[in-house]
Amino acid sequence: MKLSEIAKIIGTEFTGEDKEILSLNTLKDATEHELSFVANPKYVKDIPTSKAAAILVTEATKEYVPNNSVALVVEDTYWQMAVLSKYFAPPLEESDAPEALIGEGSSVASTATVARGAKIGKNTTVMAGVYIGSNVEIGDNTILYPNVVIYRDCKVGSDCIIHAGTVIGSDGFGFASNRLGEHKKIYHIGNAVVEDDVEIGANTTIDRAVFGTTRIEKGARLDNLIQVAHNCVFGKGSVAAAQSGFAGSTIIGQNNVFGAQSGTAGHLTIAPFNTFAARSGVTKSVKESGKTFAGFPFMEHKAWLKIQGKLARLIK
Amino acid sequence: MKLSEIAKIIGTEFTGEDKEILSLNTLKDATEHELSFVANPKYVKDIPTSKAAAILVTEATKEYVPNNSVALVVEDTYWQMAVLSKYFAPPLEESDAPEALIGEGSSVASTATVARGAKIGKNTTVMAGVYIGSNVEIGDNTILYPNVVIYRDCKVGSDCIIHAGTVIGSDGFGFASNRLGEHKKIYHIGNAVVEDDVEIGANTTIDRAVFGTTRIEKGARLDNLIQVAHNCVFGKGSVAAAQSGFAGSTIIGQNNVFGAQSGTAGHLTIAPFNTFAARSGVTKSVKESGKTFAGFPFMEHKAWLKIQGKLARLIK
Amino acid sequence: MKLSEIAKIIGTEFTGEDKEILSLNTLKDATEHELSFVANPKYVKDIPTSKAAAILVTEATKEYVPNNSVALVVEDTYWQMAVLSKYFAPPLEESDAPEALIGEGSSVASTATVARGAKIGKNTTVMAGVYIGSNVEIGDNTILYPNVVIYRDCKVGSDCIIHAGTVIGSDGFGFASNRLGEHKKIYHIGNAVVEDDVEIGANTTIDRAVFGTTRIEKGARLDNLIQVAHNCVFGKGSVAAAQSGFAGSTIIGQNNVFGAQSGTAGHLTIAPFNTFAARSGVTKSVKESGKTFAGFPFMEHKAWLKIQGKLARLIK
Repeated sequence: MKLSEIAKIIGTEFTGEDKEILSLNTLKDATEHELSFVANPKYVKDIPTSKAAAILVTEATKEYVPNNSVALVVEDTYWQMAVLSKYFAPPLEESDAPEALIGEGSSVASTATVARGAKIGKNTTVMAGVYIGSNVEIGDNTILYPNVVIYRDCKVGSDCIIHAGTVIGSDGFGFASNRLGEHKKIYHIGNAVVEDDVEIGANTTIDRAVFGTTRIEKGARLDNLIQVAHNCVFGKGSVAAAQSGFAGSTIIGQNNVFGAQSGTAGHLTIAPFNTFAARSGVTKSVKESGKTFAGFPFMEHKAWLKIQGKLARLIK
Repeated sequence: MKLSEIAKIIGTEFTGEDKEILSLNTLKDATEHELSFVANPKYVKDIPTSKAAAILVTEATKEYVPNNSVALVVEDTYWQMAVLSKYFAPPLEESDAPEALIGEGSSVASTATVARGAKIGKNTTVMAGVYIGSNVEIGDNTILYPNVVIYRDCKVGSDCIIHAGTVIGSDGFGFASNRLGEHKKIYHIGNAVVEDDVEIGANTTIDRAVFGTTRIEKGARLDNLIQVAHNCVFGKGSVAAAQSGFAGSTIIGQNNVFGAQSGTAGHLTIAPFNTFAARSGVTKSVKESGKTFAGFPFMEHKAWLKIQGKLARLIK
Repeated sequence: MKLSEIAKIIGTEFTGEDKEILSLNTLKDATEHELSFVANPKYVKDIPTSKAAAILVTEATKEYVPNNSVALVVEDTYWQMAVLSKYFAPPLEESDAPEALIGEGSSVASTATVARGAKIGKNTTVMAGVYIGSNVEIGDNTILYPNVVIYRDCKVGSDCIIHAGTVIGSDGFGFASNRLGEHKKIYHIGNAVVEDDVEIGANTTIDRAVFGTTRIEKGARLDNLIQVAHNCVFGKGSVAAAQSGFAGSTIIGQNNVFGAQSGTAGHLTIAPFNTFAARSGVTKSVKESGKTFAGFPFMEHKAWLKIQGKLARLIK
């Protein structure tokens, strides 16, 4: 899409070259064919070094746009990014893609759907009612139990087991809101990747990234009814029990253990090798390793036990 | 069904006209062709003004039944209402209804099921494995991702996006219990309505109403794995993050925001424009607007922070 | 499988008869054709009386193995049990089993799958997209709403209602872990049984047992989005509201009531006739009956109210 068309959609004008824009991306990751935006003041510092072809900015931030980039000045950059995301979202299925490839020894149930452009490895089992979207790649020796849904462009590795009803790659919970309380959907043009040797329980949901990838790393174990939000990384060999939830963009290091009904806030970084008791609510990043945490807001498990003891004595 | 047949089923007798009863309903909403009941003492006051054709009452409450209505005296009104609900529940599908209507430009995957009597608008996409029950109405430009299930008689508006595995219109969690600890199912003869411009995440569940409608109002946003119980109203433009839950008959005003893993008790009324932090447990109705709440039982966010501070100091 | 083959797989040697092993089981339940193991020191006492054909033990525990049993000495018994579980897990479907039997008056939607060896009773309704695995038995007058999944070897009784998207019999969350943080899946060779007159809500998950049976007893009621882990027993007439979760091997007596978003830890025993308020976190076994509990860690409801009162006063 030409910059001039984009400017028209969002009701602004610009000076500079009328470049062809291929996609949207963050300031850091945008290439010279992508459009970016600044919605959060803390990312203003990333404007001058961005390679983006053009950047959605406000009157206040337009001065930081570098020479290689075109400034698109609007009032609400996040809202306009949401408006544009719809134009860069691919269709639900790729009707022009080549027919799906099914590897040797793999079986696909007659009630399963494998969209065009998908590739399935060897000795993989796709059971009844499974949906595999366009361009999805599935490795070897993987089992997709009945009614698993994998949205387009996502990947599942080899030696994985995905239990019934689990959804991989649904759009994350993202939208811009205006002063009238209306919400504008942000189409999620990233994907979700499940690496090799991962087991995921039943009816769990793993959202695709806004841009980039939501990632479940090698050897991880997720139980039933778990929520993994957009842009999370769930570290190598990490483990989460049922009904736990991980808010957006949280990066979980390797071999963490999360008890049932626990959760993390968004945009955190969790160092490797920690344990979070059932119902933990992780509100801050964790820099240490080898610790056991509990409670909400979370604290070291010992401290939590101490508080519970104090509370019990309070009423005696 | 004739009143005389009903009386026979529940083992009672009555004096008065042997009316034809078409359905069950609450005292307030029952018409002159419907049967009602009083199970909760606080609704006894609604008996004298009810238009119901007949009312299930006990020996103690029969005196309040007005002249236009027949008193059906039983020992356990709630149990007998449950018994009768089965007789007024429609069949799972309407085999006699006309063939489903699919609007111009809409597509229905070959593995999807659209039951007789359903109507789908224009340019709507029904993906693989979706089930659309009898008499369901879907608007224009709506996307139903794979394996979404919409029970009979429910409605989904235009410009909606319903992600994979979400269930709309399942029976609410309702039953009468006796002293032996047995439970008698209350068949839910209401429906669920999702208004225009609503996005619902993956594997979320929205129960149909006992009588009347469970409603997700225009512009609302629900994330993954959320529970909306029977007879809730989720207000215009309101937003709920993953794994939150809303108990029965709670009325949520417009533009409320619920964090992940939060929840509300049943039969509450929540004023518009409030924010509830992650894990909030809303135990009472909220009359004010513009506030931020947290904790369980919930309180103003500031108070919650203060308590957490006190607790932290307690163990130092 | 011969003991000699097993010894080869796990890299050990043994003295004694080269028996034929048919399955894996616990020390207590293993028959003379089954292999057992000791992973937890508290079960060492069960070794001498086990009828198992052979037992995975360490150098330290091999001395307790009785004469009727062969000692298979390994370094990590739990890991090797996990390794072997794969060999005793049945195939995903029984291609050699007889065609499924469908009772008189039952209907199976054209998009549903009923695997070979399954048996469905009379007047049962199997709606669109349902998957019924090999050897599954379903009773009479039961309704399976769209996209329900029942894994192989599980049972659902008569007069049951299972709402859309619910998964019964998925593998429990079980694996052995080594010092490198790698996990070895424990294939679950038990099953899940739902007895008569049970209603289960939408998108709930009930895991199969490692060995033996996960059981939902007669007359129980489970709401939406509930997790029942492997080897639980959910007692007769017991009731759980939405988003509650029950960790592995917990035995819940009859007519317990669990509020929404509540949960129990694993390996507990809960006496009959108790009530657990919403969000209760049950951390210990309950020996009394007729009580009402709340909080996390849970306590009597009165105590919880008292603590909340104290906390509220703390900040005034």
